[in-house]
Amino acid sequence: MRNVEIIGYGKYLPQNTINIDGQIRYRAGEGETQLTMAIHAIRQALEQAHMDISQIDLIVAASAVDIQPIPCTAALIHEQIAKGSEIPAMDINTTCTSFITALDTISYLIEAGRYHNVLIVSSELASLGLNPNQKESFELFSDAAAAVIVSKSRDSQTGILYAVQKTWSEGAHATEIRGGLTGFHPKYYSDKTRAEYMFDMKGIEVLSLAAKKLPLMFEECYQESGLSMEDIDMVVPHQASKALSMVMKRCKIPEGKYINKVGQFGNMVSASVPVAMIDAIENGEIKKGNVVMLCGTAAGLTTNILVMRY
Amino acid sequence: MRNVEIIGYGKYLPQNTINIDGQIRYRAGEGETQLTMAIHAIRQALEQAHMDISQIDLIVAASAVDIQPIPCTAALIHEQIAKGSEIPAMDINTTCTSFITALDTISYLIEAGRYHNVLIVSSELASLGLNPNQKESFELFSDAAAAVIVSKSRDSQTGILYAVQKTWSEGAHATEIRGGLTGFHPKYYSDKTRAEYMFDMKGIEVLSLAAKKLPLMFEECYQESGLSMEDIDMVVPHQASKALSMVMKRCKIPEGKYINKVGQFGNMVSASVPVAMIDAIENGEIKKGNVVMLCGTAAGLTTNILVMRY
Repeated sequence: MRNVEIIGYGKYLPQNTINIDGQIRYRAGEGETQLTMAIHAIRQALEQAHMDISQIDLIVAASAVDIQPIPCTAALIHEQIAKGSEIPAMDINTTCTSFITALDTISYLIEAGRYHNVLIVSSELASLGLNPNQKESFELFSDAAAAVIVSKSRDSQTGILYAVQKTWSEGAHATEIRGGLTGFHPKYYSDKTRAEYMFDMKGIEVLSLAAKKLPLMFEECYQESGLSMEDIDMVVPHQASKALSMVMKRCKIPEGKYINKVGQFGNMVSASVPVAMIDAIENGEIKKGNVVMLCGTAAGLTTNILVMRY
Repeated sequence: MRNVEIIGYGKYLPQNTINIDGQIRYRAGEGETQLTMAIHAIRQALEQAHMDISQIDLIVAASAVDIQPIPCTAALIHEQIAKGSEIPAMDINTTCTSFITALDTISYLIEAGRYHNVLIVSSELASLGLNPNQKESFELFSDAAAAVIVSKSRDSQTGILYAVQKTWSEGAHATEIRGGLTGFHPKYYSDKTRAEYMFDMKGIEVLSLAAKKLPLMFEECYQESGLSMEDIDMVVPHQASKALSMVMKRCKIPEGKYINKVGQFGNMVSASVPVAMIDAIENGEIKKGNVVMLCGTAAGLTTNILVMRY
C-alpha cells in the first residue's frame, strides 16, 4: 500500500469533433496543440485542487509521443506554467499506459517523502500522425489531455493497493510510429516514405497477443494482491478500440464493471485512462472510497494494472 | 539514504573517431545505431555483473533522444535482449541528465522492494542530428552508450545519500531539437526547414543560466545533505563542454576532484555521465566505498545532483 491520493484533476477535449458511424472522435482545431491541451488540463486540475503551481514540487509528463526530441515534454510544459520556479520536470513513457506507469512510479517517491504534490499530465495530438489509408487507426483515435495532482493521502485507507507492469516485446512492432527520431530521421521524409512517419497499428496482432497474455496477468494480480473482482468497484481500461468489451470478457471483467466510452471518446493514447477515469469521477461512476482498477495495453507491448482506493 | 548499489556496468564507444584540434569525438559507423550501441553496453554490464537477462526485473531507457516516437526506447531494447520475457520496460527522460534522474527515481522502487535488479541504459546517436553550420555543437558531441545494473546494496553503507533535481524553464529553448514530433512534424521537412530537425544549442545562454543557478544549488546540496566537498571523493559532471573547468571552479569544486574528459570523449548527451563514471571506475579514479557525486545540466534547463557511496 502506497498512501497516495488524487487531490485534483482536469481534462481537456478539443471543441472540434467528427462523427464516424456514430462514434465521436476529437480533433484539435486551429491553435490547439499538444502543449495547449496539456495546459488547459493542468489549469483545471490546479483549480479543482484549490492549488497554485508553487505548491507543486514535481511535474511529470506522461505522454506517448513528445512535443520535441529535445528538451523533454515536461520542460516545455514547465515553461508555460512554472517559468521562474525551480520545480523539477521529467518524462515517463510507456506509450499508451504512460499515465499508469507515472502514477505507479511516482507513488514510491511520494510515499518516501521526496515529493509532496506531483502533477502528472498526459497530452496527445494523435490526429497529426494518423494515416488516412489505415482505416482502423484513422477512425479510432482522438486528441485529448488530462492532468492529475497526486499527494500523500490524508487518510490511511486511500492509496495504491497493487500495481504491476509487464512488457512483451514480441509486439514491439505491432503499434508504431517509426519515423521522426534516430531510427528513421526526418531527413528521409518524402512522398514515398511519408507512411513511416504516421501511426501504424496491426490491430489483429495486438489483439491476439493481448488476448493471450492478459487473462493470466489478471489472474496473477488477484493472487498476488489478495483481491478479487468483487473487491473492485470500477475498472478503467485504456479505451483501446471497439474490441474493448471482447477483451474485458476474456479477462472475466463483467459488463457494467468497466468504463467503455470508446464510442464517446475514441482512443486518446496516453490520455485515455486519465480522461476516462476523470469522466467517471465527474459522472459519479467512481466515488470517493471506491476501489478502482486502472489497466491497459500499450505499444511495446506493455501492460499495466494498478489498483487504488480512490 | 537509499541502499542501492551498481553491481554491473558497461560502456560502448564507436570505433570510428574524428579529431578536432586535439579533441577526440566518436562517430557511429556503418551499422552502428542508437539501438546496437545500447545492446553492446548492456551485454557488457550483464557480463560484468555475472548476470543473465532473466535476473533483470526492470529495463529503463534513459536517453535524451529516442529511437522511434512509438513505442518507447526501452521496449525496442527489450526486443533485442529480453524478447519472450515479461520484464517491464519504461523510459525516463530529462535529456542530458536522464541517467541521473533514472538512477535517482528507480532507487526508491528498489528500496521499497518493487524491483530487485534494474537495468538502466543511456544511448545516444548525437551525430545524426548535428548541424554542420553550428560549429560549437558540431565539434562537441559524440555517439556513445552506457548501461548499469542497480540492485539493493549488500551492505548498509552503499547507496544514495542525497539527490535533487531542479528545472529552470527560462532555458527551455537554449538547447533544442525542435523538429520530428508533434511540435514540428517531419512532414514539414524541406531544404528550408532542415535546421529545425537538427541540434541547436545557444551555448552562451546555457552557460550563463547554469553559472547563475548552479553555485546556489551546490550550496543547498551541502546544507541539506550535511555533506561538504571534503566528504566527496570524486565528482562526475556531465561532460557538457570545454567550459566544464570554468563551471566547476564557479561551483567551488577543486581541480583534481572532478572528471574532465571532454577532450577524450566529447559531450555524449545522456551517456556522458555514466560513460565518464564507468571510465573512472575502470581507471581506478573511483574506488569501491568512495563517495561520488554525479551532476549535470540538461536541456530544459534541468540540473541534477546525486551523491552516492559507490
